[in-house]
Amino acid sequence: MLTIYNDRHALHHGKLEMFRGELVPCFEVPARADYVLQELQQRRLGPIEEPSAFDDAAIARVHAQRYLDFLSGAWDEWVALDPANATRDALPSYWPIRTFRSDVLPASFPARMGLFSYDAGTPLTSGTWTAARAGACCALTAAARVLQGDRAAFALTRPPGHHAGVDFFGGYCFLNNAAIAAQSLRDAGVERVAVLDIDYHHGNGTQAIFYERADVQFTSLHGDPHTEYPYYLGYADERGAGEGLGFNHNLPLARGSGFAQWREALATALRGIAAFKPGALVVSLGLDTFAGDPIAGFTLATADYLRVGEDLSRAGLPTVFVFEGGYAVAEVGANAVNVLEGFMQQSG
Amino acid sequence: MLTIYNDRHALHHGKLEMFRGELVPCFEVPARADYVLQELQQRRLGPIEEPSAFDDAAIARVHAQRYLDFLSGAWDEWVALDPANATRDALPSYWPIRTFRSDVLPASFPARMGLFSYDAGTPLTSGTWTAARAGACCALTAAARVLQGDRAAFALTRPPGHHAGVDFFGGYCFLNNAAIAAQSLRDAGVERVAVLDIDYHHGNGTQAIFYERADVQFTSLHGDPHTEYPYYLGYADERGAGEGLGFNHNLPLARGSGFAQWREALATALRGIAAFKPGALVVSLGLDTFAGDPIAGFTLATADYLRVGEDLSRAGLPTVFVFEGGYAVAEVGANAVNVLEGFMQQSG
Repeated sequence: MLTIYNDRHALHHGKLEMFRGELVPCFEVPARADYVLQELQQRRLGPIEEPSAFDDAAIARVHAQRYLDFLSGAWDEWVALDPANATRDALPSYWPIRTFRSDVLPASFPARMGLFSYDAGTPLTSGTWTAARAGACCALTAAARVLQGDRAAFALTRPPGHHAGVDFFGGYCFLNNAAIAAQSLRDAGVERVAVLDIDYHHGNGTQAIFYERADVQFTSLHGDPHTEYPYYLGYADERGAGEGLGFNHNLPLARGSGFAQWREALATALRGIAAFKPGALVVSLGLDTFAGDPIAGFTLATADYLRVGEDLSRAGLPTVFVFEGGYAVAEVGANAVNVLEGFMQQSG
Repeated sequence: MLTIYNDRHALHHGKLEMFRGELVPCFEVPARADYVLQELQQRRLGPIEEPSAFDDAAIARVHAQRYLDFLSGAWDEWVALDPANATRDALPSYWPIRTFRSDVLPASFPARMGLFSYDAGTPLTSGTWTAARAGACCALTAAARVLQGDRAAFALTRPPGHHAGVDFFGGYCFLNNAAIAAQSLRDAGVERVAVLDIDYHHGNGTQAIFYERADVQFTSLHGDPHTEYPYYLGYADERGAGEGLGFNHNLPLARGSGFAQWREALATALRGIAAFKPGALVVSLGLDTFAGDPIAGFTLATADYLRVGEDLSRAGLPTVFVFEGGYAVAEVGANAVNVLEGFMQQSG
């Protein structure tokens, strides 16, 4: 399988995140992608290519321009506030929840940090924009290659994307690579695109981006948001709205669920996807369903990921894989590549 | 002037708050109230009495029951998560901004911390509920005494209240003491109540609580939210909604404004209050308009606060003063008591 990869991902390397009242070292680290790359190379899974260049228009099909303007200049603004900021990441401190306004763009940079985010666990660093933009280009390139005839392609990107909304970052995500890939497939003429999110955490950003649309179906298997991040979205009763009603499918599973249960939910998801008759599938490939993940709660084993790949392959769809979460760093490579290898073996 | 005070305020003593990407010692400390108390005693400004007992119903007239249920049990839940939490405050890490839901009450305690708050600068401690509840009782008692005929009374409370909304804490505030006092005056038969907020920071909570009501007018003088906390509310174009349209008045002033400019805005505010013909006035008394405040930007001098008190007194209204912000700790006593003394001297 073709992999699209760019080493600029490593420019995004956050130091600390807020976790239950304390600043702790970031879980989302460059080594995650390094381990996957190494595993791809060792198993000779296929060519590894650089992304093509895309202008911002493809990204602006999903994200609000005011958000992209903010992200692209954020680091310079942060350092301009105080030269000492050059050595520390930017983290927001307040957020416009209910009764607050989101329509005014405050002059204050910290205020805009909060306006365009939803957690204190996603540091913005000197290299965040470059890394995130390169990651979105990986996703766009993978989608383009699938359009050109590859059965599947893998966008090995960091930071991840599925928590990022139209105009906010959070959950380690800045640009929603899966949504950008899906939209690019639509824009290239694919009438119906399915997005399947198998990260442990609900893909709230992707859901919200397509919630009122019937042309992009969103399905997610994830830890029950009653107990698992992102908590405020991902419940089974969220079915879409307006024209999108019936095109959003959440399959939350209790913390502690094992592979048998998870695979049953995957089968349900794949039946829904087949019924939608999409022209292409985008998979948000999170590996934090793994038993050893430090911030998640399912119990999949490394060998299970081969089965996941096989199941996904049987959907018979042109498929774009986009790398999302997975924080058991040393195992994330084997787990990710098992999905891809299972997919390829099944495809023959 | 009568002061209502209870030393349980000191049970709320946060350790660290998030401030521009770092955890720093809390600005809102028990010593703030201690300095005011000391100054009141030294100047023999009047009796200092304990609050009366009130049941939760008076507080639930302003705050959502689900929020009060959360607050009252929050510390026990936090410690139950991890015994080590007993020695560290609870701070939220994620918040349900736009596209997220606020209607579901997640089982996760950290998720509910975020659901019911809007910043990472307001630690919840072992004594927060006791202190906040006692503070609300101080405000209710002060209002009751004014109803019984005192020209004015001062609720010397901590934590402050004006940033707290119907169902969220933030900005060092948990229960909106000024709103609770104003509502109690309404419930006791005062037809129209004016709330005047002269804290440096916009009283977003109080505004939001009364935004659609014509019986409680809200007026605020504060730092321009384009550059000053709380950023996402407090703009001049917020005039109220529905029946409340025309009963909300924001007078933002540029950072750096001095007393002459500030006093002119106060005169404008007082003209609007007079036109409303209220039966009573609640003053959210913040002293962070002081030149020496570490987290604000106006330049009022200690002597100016005597003039502030005189101006407020000339409104000729039964007046409940509620203590809010002011973080130049050593000077907050002199500044607060100057307002009260100016008020009394003018009242004759």
